[in-house]
Amino acid sequence: MTWIDLPDATPFGPDNLPLGVFRLGDEEPRIGAAIGDHLIDLAPVASAQMLDGSQLFNQPTLNAFLALGRPAWKATREWLLDLVRNENNRDAVEPHLVPRDAVTMLLPFEVADYVDFYASEVHATNLGRLFRPDSEPLLPNWKHLPVGYHGRAGTVVASGTDIVRPSGQRKAPTDTEPSYGPSQRLDIEVELGFVVGTPSALGTPVGVDAFEDHMYGVVLVNDWSARDLQAWEYVPLGPFLGKSFATSISPWVVSLEALKDAMVPLPQQDPPVLPYLRGDLQNPDITFEVRWNGQLVSTPPYREMYWSPAQMLAHLSVNGASVRTGDLYASGTVSGTAKDQRGSFIELSWGGREPVTVNGEERTFLQDGDEVTITGWATTKDGRRIGLGEVTGRITPARK
Amino acid sequence: MTWIDLPDATPFGPDNLPLGVFRLGDEEPRIGAAIGDHLIDLAPVASAQMLDGSQLFNQPTLNAFLALGRPAWKATREWLLDLVRNENNRDAVEPHLVPRDAVTMLLPFEVADYVDFYASEVHATNLGRLFRPDSEPLLPNWKHLPVGYHGRAGTVVASGTDIVRPSGQRKAPTDTEPSYGPSQRLDIEVELGFVVGTPSALGTPVGVDAFEDHMYGVVLVNDWSARDLQAWEYVPLGPFLGKSFATSISPWVVSLEALKDAMVPLPQQDPPVLPYLRGDLQNPDITFEVRWNGQLVSTPPYREMYWSPAQMLAHLSVNGASVRTGDLYASGTVSGTAKDQRGSFIELSWGGREPVTVNGEERTFLQDGDEVTITGWATTKDGRRIGLGEVTGRITPARK
Repeated sequence: MTWIDLPDATPFGPDNLPLGVFRLGDEEPRIGAAIGDHLIDLAPVASAQMLDGSQLFNQPTLNAFLALGRPAWKATREWLLDLVRNENNRDAVEPHLVPRDAVTMLLPFEVADYVDFYASEVHATNLGRLFRPDSEPLLPNWKHLPVGYHGRAGTVVASGTDIVRPSGQRKAPTDTEPSYGPSQRLDIEVELGFVVGTPSALGTPVGVDAFEDHMYGVVLVNDWSARDLQAWEYVPLGPFLGKSFATSISPWVVSLEALKDAMVPLPQQDPPVLPYLRGDLQNPDITFEVRWNGQLVSTPPYREMYWSPAQMLAHLSVNGASVRTGDLYASGTVSGTAKDQRGSFIELSWGGREPVTVNGEERTFLQDGDEVTITGWATTKDGRRIGLGEVTGRITPARK
Repeated sequence: MTWIDLPDATPFGPDNLPLGVFRLGDEEPRIGAAIGDHLIDLAPVASAQMLDGSQLFNQPTLNAFLALGRPAWKATREWLLDLVRNENNRDAVEPHLVPRDAVTMLLPFEVADYVDFYASEVHATNLGRLFRPDSEPLLPNWKHLPVGYHGRAGTVVASGTDIVRPSGQRKAPTDTEPSYGPSQRLDIEVELGFVVGTPSALGTPVGVDAFEDHMYGVVLVNDWSARDLQAWEYVPLGPFLGKSFATSISPWVVSLEALKDAMVPLPQQDPPVLPYLRGDLQNPDITFEVRWNGQLVSTPPYREMYWSPAQMLAHLSVNGASVRTGDLYASGTVSGTAKDQRGSFIELSWGGREPVTVNGEERTFLQDGDEVTITGWATTKDGRRIGLGEVTGRITPARK
């Protein structure tokens, strides 16, 4: 299928070809496509072939490419597929294959607005039980609309960025007064992120059926969360400092086009949703693996998510809110029904009361020096894996 | 004080000199300083004087200027003051005085992240009573931290932009099911917006005392709100579609430097706040006027706000969240204790139960065709007015 030597079980086979932004030594950052253990340095390849796009790949972000829209995304994908499949392209491409371990991967796009949803019924139920133990875990609106909120776009960081332990206010129910200090309940959230390419006009909703015209592709998201800060601050206006210190994303943006054979029908929604949320609804069949200091602790499944990505975009814009190139919205924590499918440590350790064994130690929340790596891949109907790569980060001590 | 002819009671006297972005005919947008009924077209004036800044003013946004930081802001202000005070500059400036009614004002800066606070005790108490009539109106965290949340940066629009009535889901307590349709409780919120110039590093809080190093100035904000959408969606993650369709800001950014004689001590905070929120705390002494289809309906006072702008920035960043040039944070609705000082129509009409008389009609929320204009000015200790100009918008019908 390709003339390029690929290692076994690579996340980046010849049908995937995700795009990202790399830096090689002290050269200017530019755009590459991942394949196996390499990336294709696209600017010189495009330039030699006299493609219009050569300037587009000599960019420090994907934004200009994303703004081109679906026909250009498809044409680019056809070109990339031909580069790796057609032996005739070997001479043009081989000099521009760069070993991925020789580069630093950067944030792949400049984030415009960042929205975080809450689309897993299992996760929302778990968090409801933990945060509001005396009430119904799912609130009355949850099955009628994909609940979401805006997060901080300016603190979305590239995979590999150290995460400084956040400080802030917290007050346990047993405390009489709030106190200030480093978060004692620092957590992860395993999420899938959706990257908007084509903008929409202010005042005009993006319907469920227009999803593929606007949505370029997906990244892995770790939505780091300080549960103690969040619990004290979040009423009535929602999470703020408990989330805003950092959100890590994976460097390779996998296109929806590459995922098209890995889509599965959305689970049944009951009660039926309002007409603006109806359509041909699908989820990507993605499995995540969460490693805590190297040890596999959870394997959340995306296919069970209650709300589809097209519904999230339709809801986000139904009030006429415009979307922009570089908008990122995340699914919310992906948690499956089994205990070892939970996508956050507050769920895995049930609020800290049921520690998890990590490399022989009993653990609940994150300690300084801990590293969390999330990987993920989609499985196609014929059993191929389309990898999403990884998002990783290490906790450094709170600043004095 | 200036050689320029000024109309009586202009908001833009010779001590103010706010900056904004204008378009004249089909020329490229660029930066001007308002004075009286004119603006100074700064790029050609700076260019003729061989100032470094000439390129900086030939820009479609203030962002590059804002990024220069406080010493450059001060130097620019000194230069501007000299231009308008010193008769010797008449020949250089007069050819570049443009009547303000000849230009279109644009969004003055590209908004990076947008945060909305909730800093008026009167407003938070009123909204608590209206949204949660069976509980204490102020939640336990409210006097310990400035409650806030992230809004949608991509839908911050220039004053004068039509506001399309948003549609979405709502469910009154008496409804058995949610329904979809145009908002029936469309409202305003009178707020003051703070514009960040100097960025901060990820992981490093901006202390209360560093406020003036980062904060360039202020704008008027109308945070349009769909109360029916908001009431149904806002638990547990906060307001989302009820706010994200549009937020209007005034075109002229008034510098903190211009407001320095109009600062008053913050009202007493009780209970005492945590150390990271302490310092020399002040509010600008600003009065707003709200006109509904031309009729004055409210005059909210800023000086009574519970949380100071420096505390908002210190809190926003205490978890290590970085700020960027172009970040905008708004105070939350400014409401005074008197009924005719309330900064939203849901408060003025007490949830729609006590209509307001507007041009002889009984009114509660916004109807299609309504226009709302907010003006504001700071009052200095010696009684001068530093005007903020106006922010205005008209409601157009929901899209089909």
